[in-house]
Amino acid sequence: MTTNQLIIKMVLDRWYGALKNCDNHINSLTDEKLMKEIAPGKNRGIYLLGHLIAVHDDMIILLGLGEKLYPELHTPFLADPDKTAAIIPSVSELRKYWTTQCQWLQQQFDSLSPEQWFEKHAAVSAEDFANEPHRNKLNIIITRTTHLSYHTGQLVLLK
Amino acid sequence: MTTNQLIIKMVLDRWYGALKNCDNHINSLTDEKLMKEIAPGKNRGIYLLGHLIAVHDDMIILLGLGEKLYPELHTPFLADPDKTAAIIPSVSELRKYWTTQCQWLQQQFDSLSPEQWFEKHAAVSAEDFANEPHRNKLNIIITRTTHLSYHTGQLVLLK
Repeated sequence: MTTNQLIIKMVLDRWYGALKNCDNHINSLTDEKLMKEIAPGKNRGIYLLGHLIAVHDDMIILLGLGEKLYPELHTPFLADPDKTAAIIPSVSELRKYWTTQCQWLQQQFDSLSPEQWFEKHAAVSAEDFANEPHRNKLNIIITRTTHLSYHTGQLVLLK
Repeated sequence: MTTNQLIIKMVLDRWYGALKNCDNHINSLTDEKLMKEIAPGKNRGIYLLGHLIAVHDDMIILLGLGEKLYPELHTPFLADPDKTAAIIPSVSELRKYWTTQCQWLQQQFDSLSPEQWFEKHAAVSAEDFANEPHRNKLNIIITRTTHLSYHTGQLVLLK
């Protein structure tokens, strides 16, 4: 195993571990529980679930993997705060999106070569990347793993 | 910059970014706020602050950097749940420990060479490490960064 393969494994192991942890919590919560606020006056579980799907959809663009699976989630779950959208998908629908997206992303990640993980992501220019080679695709996974963990720490409060 | 140096920068940048984010939230909360529960019946802010210091103290052992700075925090903030210890340090004392520890760890991290980051951590045997080279010191930073983010997502609810 090369150093590149080793570090990609370390980063992806943590991503999949954090995703599994979040998934276990979501699966242990009923739809009714996910409709509740994580703390008085704060975001609801359904918003956090939709938010995670919207943010992970953005990764598809950043990693150059194609088009978003659920672009309609951007406004109600990322651009706008909770409890402002007139109509949002049900918890049941979001659960399906979440599962489909997790599987889709894993298939895409499996197809990337070690070299591709160290290529620039879509939000950085070629000029900037020449001076800032850390702004690569693997770094997107590192930052989204902490984002996922941040909100998992909130979802767990619904138990 | 070698690939090893690049990936160490990526991992440490995220660690310091998550630490700064957490520190900003802690500094924006009064001592009184930190004495409150993050949600009804859940951990108090003071417990999460002490818990993070106790877990980061464990990193000193795992990374082979010496002795813990605050071993007395292990029982009340890590082994035991919140609201069970008879006496715990004040929020004011914990703030000082936190700042001191963050600075101390950064000095130690700065002194580690790229090669040292890829050495085994203290909780894995030499035999296991031969087959599982991902269980290195840098991986401790990756896992503790998500732990830190998980609890930062909870501390922010006190605002």
